[in-house]
Amino acid sequence: VTGFLGRRKAAQESTRLKGETHEFINPLNPGELTTHPGEEFRKQWEQIILSAQDKICNGISELEGGREFHEDVFQRPNNGGWGRTRVLQNGKVFEKGGVNVSIVKGHLPPGAARQMTSRGHTGLDPSRALEFYACGLSLVIHPHNPMAPTVHCNYRFFQLFDAETKQPLTWWFGGGTDLTPSYLFEEDAEYFHRTLKNVCDRHGEDKYPRFKRWCDEYFLIPHRGETRGVGGIFFDDFNEGGNPEVGKAFASECLDAFNEAYIPLVRKRMDSEFTPEQKEWQQLRRGRYVEFNLLYDRGTKFGLQTPDARYESILMSLPLTSRWEYQAPQGDVEGSWEQRTQQALKNPRDWIP
Amino acid sequence: VTGFLGRRKAAQESTRLKGETHEFINPLNPGELTTHPGEEFRKQWEQIILSAQDKICNGISELEGGREFHEDVFQRPNNGGWGRTRVLQNGKVFEKGGVNVSIVKGHLPPGAARQMTSRGHTGLDPSRALEFYACGLSLVIHPHNPMAPTVHCNYRFFQLFDAETKQPLTWWFGGGTDLTPSYLFEEDAEYFHRTLKNVCDRHGEDKYPRFKRWCDEYFLIPHRGETRGVGGIFFDDFNEGGNPEVGKAFASECLDAFNEAYIPLVRKRMDSEFTPEQKEWQQLRRGRYVEFNLLYDRGTKFGLQTPDARYESILMSLPLTSRWEYQAPQGDVEGSWEQRTQQALKNPRDWIP
Repeated sequence: VTGFLGRRKAAQESTRLKGETHEFINPLNPGELTTHPGEEFRKQWEQIILSAQDKICNGISELEGGREFHEDVFQRPNNGGWGRTRVLQNGKVFEKGGVNVSIVKGHLPPGAARQMTSRGHTGLDPSRALEFYACGLSLVIHPHNPMAPTVHCNYRFFQLFDAETKQPLTWWFGGGTDLTPSYLFEEDAEYFHRTLKNVCDRHGEDKYPRFKRWCDEYFLIPHRGETRGVGGIFFDDFNEGGNPEVGKAFASECLDAFNEAYIPLVRKRMDSEFTPEQKEWQQLRRGRYVEFNLLYDRGTKFGLQTPDARYESILMSLPLTSRWEYQAPQGDVEGSWEQRTQQALKNPRDWIP
Repeated sequence: VTGFLGRRKAAQESTRLKGETHEFINPLNPGELTTHPGEEFRKQWEQIILSAQDKICNGISELEGGREFHEDVFQRPNNGGWGRTRVLQNGKVFEKGGVNVSIVKGHLPPGAARQMTSRGHTGLDPSRALEFYACGLSLVIHPHNPMAPTVHCNYRFFQLFDAETKQPLTWWFGGGTDLTPSYLFEEDAEYFHRTLKNVCDRHGEDKYPRFKRWCDEYFLIPHRGETRGVGGIFFDDFNEGGNPEVGKAFASECLDAFNEAYIPLVRKRMDSEFTPEQKEWQQLRRGRYVEFNLLYDRGTKFGLQTPDARYESILMSLPLTSRWEYQAPQGDVEGSWEQRTQQALKNPRDWIP
């Protein structure tokens, strides 16, 4: 079985649990990592994340005529870090949007380790208790208008320590930016991908093709044989070169490009006319979004397993409204826009020739 | 840590994945089972299941003024059994209801064994390949009116065979019936529980207390610290006494009592007046329902992992519409009906004094 579709099918047949069959990017074995980020590096990354949150929220608020996000700053118990959740609900343009920062420290609960990376931690002694540090930004934005796409973006830095000796063991970056239209506009998908590719290319020409494909694989809904959306980029376990500055620079430039990649698409579509039937299709697609996030998304599972998880922040990714219909016919109507859109999810395309 | 709430809390703290901490009912060790159901037993059980489907659908259709369920009969590939899915969507009284029968045979995929029972299969040699037979009825019914409760009911018989020798290895019954009101009417919860208790009591006075408590534990949404609804009964791994006739009689009487337990509650509430705010609360509760089913329900996970799963049948349990709001305030408004309802989910009660 070769090729993406073949491997996807193999993944479905073997576990039906997760379509991700990515051949991992050969991150350095944890034992080979010699450079370990310290307090100063983590503070720099936190500043990058917090500034990105400001910039993105400002961009979204501007589309809402200046209406600001509702902000909740919370401390986690037991010196376990803090977070800044920002939510905009029932806006003029956006049905619901959350842009969250969380900075979490603590013991790694047994079940959670598996959810943290795509490959598990074969390089680490499984008998040692671990502590972790995670700092990231996670956003999901759902516009009202069914012609305007939903977007998700998440960039995070993880570090693991030996719980006893407090020695750093390994670290990595992960993240991605991906688009979920209810109605496919090919030019929008191309624009979105090209914007991300421009960032990737500055960090090596291998990045976009690898991370684009990884995105298609990660956001697969295996039981439906379709992806959550038209993709973008996704990567995990990123510690290439062994220098944390490389990952920090890449992830921060990806964050910086978010507004450029997404906001013009909303601006172009947010006042489009649409029919009640088109709104209903959007609601059905939202149902698929929920299916992916609750059944398959590693981040959601990891979040909910974290001790003292703030579930309101984690579940902000779910749409305000969604719909499940038994055998909804729209995606199968020959020649329909809905079918064309669904086809693009069943057969992920190369958006940049 | 003792008592239900203590154990529930311990479960949340340890895994945050599943609140079920039931002390299992000491089913006979598979090796000690000497009576193994044969073809005739399975046919009898299939007839019970198919008749129950007819009876329940007729009861629901009557509330809809005779409108019938849409029926799909499907064959599973590779001689893997068949199913009869019945769905009623966008009715006058019901937003969505599915009453499904499935009769499934096949090899047990590796990941699926864990989802099959609550205890795993410690009595079986993990190196042997397994085949399974499962026949059950599963229903979820969501009325439009927020005063009328959602209901779920599922009864199933499982049998495992050695894939090589075809020898039967073990078998068990599982199932339950549980109620999920958006607005708590204590008299309705009591009536529902009493109807189930009457059935249970005919099969031993231990049954209702054990299965009522198991239900509260199984249908816990751990990240919210609340149950999906006001419960009912739930059991699994049931092969007590080693005689399959015992489980068959019990499960078929539970199925038979479904209409009596549920239909009067809908009839009483289906024409109630309600406000838009009450409809919105119902939609939020539906969101919780989706969270439980997609994040925690073993049956859904098992179903989606089954080779050639018919996901449309499995996901019929999801409501037609649902809603997620960041920090929805209703459940916290002092003295409100919504808060009273939510309190009953955070602190499961004994409905029968």
